[in-house]
Amino acid sequence: MSLRLGELSTPSLLVDADALDHNLGTLAKALPGPRLRPHVKAHKCTALARRQAALGNRGFTCATIREMEGMAAAGLGDDLLLANEALDLRRLARLDARVTVAVDSEETIAAAARDGVREVVIDVNVGLPRCGCKPERAGVLADRARARGLSVRGVMGYEGHAMPVEDRAKRHEIVAQSMALLGKAHADVGGEMISAGGTGSWDLNTWATEIQAGSYALMDTAYAKLGLPFRQALCVLATVVSVSESFAVADCGLKALGMDHGNPTIEGARVWFCSDEHVTFASEARVRVGDRVRVQPAHVDPTVAYHEWLSVVSGDEVVERWPVDLRGW
Amino acid sequence: MSLRLGELSTPSLLVDADALDHNLGTLAKALPGPRLRPHVKAHKCTALARRQAALGNRGFTCATIREMEGMAAAGLGDDLLLANEALDLRRLARLDARVTVAVDSEETIAAAARDGVREVVIDVNVGLPRCGCKPERAGVLADRARARGLSVRGVMGYEGHAMPVEDRAKRHEIVAQSMALLGKAHADVGGEMISAGGTGSWDLNTWATEIQAGSYALMDTAYAKLGLPFRQALCVLATVVSVSESFAVADCGLKALGMDHGNPTIEGARVWFCSDEHVTFASEARVRVGDRVRVQPAHVDPTVAYHEWLSVVSGDEVVERWPVDLRGW
Repeated sequence: MSLRLGELSTPSLLVDADALDHNLGTLAKALPGPRLRPHVKAHKCTALARRQAALGNRGFTCATIREMEGMAAAGLGDDLLLANEALDLRRLARLDARVTVAVDSEETIAAAARDGVREVVIDVNVGLPRCGCKPERAGVLADRARARGLSVRGVMGYEGHAMPVEDRAKRHEIVAQSMALLGKAHADVGGEMISAGGTGSWDLNTWATEIQAGSYALMDTAYAKLGLPFRQALCVLATVVSVSESFAVADCGLKALGMDHGNPTIEGARVWFCSDEHVTFASEARVRVGDRVRVQPAHVDPTVAYHEWLSVVSGDEVVERWPVDLRGW
Repeated sequence: MSLRLGELSTPSLLVDADALDHNLGTLAKALPGPRLRPHVKAHKCTALARRQAALGNRGFTCATIREMEGMAAAGLGDDLLLANEALDLRRLARLDARVTVAVDSEETIAAAARDGVREVVIDVNVGLPRCGCKPERAGVLADRARARGLSVRGVMGYEGHAMPVEDRAKRHEIVAQSMALLGKAHADVGGEMISAGGTGSWDLNTWATEIQAGSYALMDTAYAKLGLPFRQALCVLATVVSVSESFAVADCGLKALGMDHGNPTIEGARVWFCSDEHVTFASEARVRVGDRVRVQPAHVDPTVAYHEWLSVVSGDEVVERWPVDLRGW
């Protein structure tokens, strides 16, 4: 492909080829093969997942049934874990893939058994107020699952409350506490799998048999504060469409940006606010209509979910265009 | 269609059929025919736009080129206004539609002329720091546009800074000030069109020849505070997938909700936080795994842009399913 950056329509998601290679390579080396189970929710892109698989990390974590379907259809179904609870799993029974599903209640176990799922993990709450059973209940649930004919591969528990903690020692402490709970549950559950962790604990979590990191591939402004060995790889390319005396407006707004972490940033500029299709900002340097600007979203995952394409760029060249093909549910 | 609400997969966008009919009917009656130019950015759905057209409002406002393309392809191209500036308009030249484009600079006029656009409006900044030229510059830009062979239909100016003002008298005052500026620009520009307004000023803006309201169709929690005669028509249906002692978790998260106005609400519950695919909440009533809950997004437009379908419901019945077919750019 000989497309130049200037020929891309805007807004467009850009992935820096070098940063992506660095991020994928770094973690694949540190956590080879089944030690890393990349989470696809961060990028929702089978072409990017194929890169992860090519580096040896062939088991994947998914957040939605659509992600499971897409990964299986792309031939990346060696070992797919749906790391969320769901009550209608019928679409999973049809997949040409090894499918494992998280369960944390009688109801989710019943749904898995009824809908033809064969393998499950017991999802354990290790401190984040979200899904997962109490650690002391994991053994009972494993027994119930086995009694229904399900194979229990082990446990899963996400120490998400540790991720935003900037102090590394403190973060390590929370990871250790969380994994003590998960280890206790695992002793009751059995199985070979202890699945946990994320980008913020990739090297701190030495208890899990596999790490479910996702954000490391494209990175995030929140994770950037943790001093991790991964580079910011993603931004949104926008075009300045209007300029006034004190501000300028580019074509990247609320429908092109995950906004739960707040406004995006633009280097050398102060962002005033976003509208549906616009960002209004004041730039230090002079800006002209037609200029291109790079908008850094505050949160990557819900940003990617708005876009149809990822354009992989090297300098001024668009080297690949990948469909964001795992969106929706 | 005989689909029941309980058979819908989640998360699903629901539109209340009665509320939608009420909203569309109310404004079509107050602003018949060309007095209302519905903005499609709020719903991004040609099936819904077809309803608006059937009520007599056959001219539409669009925010993106994709919206213009989709509306033209759906046979709704009688009179489409791209109410945003853009610098690459080549895709518009191919449309089977009457196409008018907003311009606010030499550069956007040059782009329109170069790319085969025939009709423009001069976009005037009437107080909101976004696009639009200074009022005193509108006449000069109209001359430049005409010199390049473009037909200038008139002026456009969005008094968006008036919309969040809850006090009606104060809101009216801001609308009046804004329209005084737009009227002055119109005197210099000429043409038959003064396009302005929105859901929050639908009856206050008596200066515009046409009102560009969009949110009135599905409504919004922000607009709900203004005492407008429109009903909340939209929510996201979610399934409770996990329950703990003090909280529950449903499958509607950051990728199913516009978050720029903050957390969504759930009636009878307190929302704690959202994750990518989850909302964690504490409910007053007992909640069980498998229960369905209705999640009210804080901002409708960027919520709709995440979803592929709108399910129109009447009581427990899904009466229609409409693709959200105007997403992307």
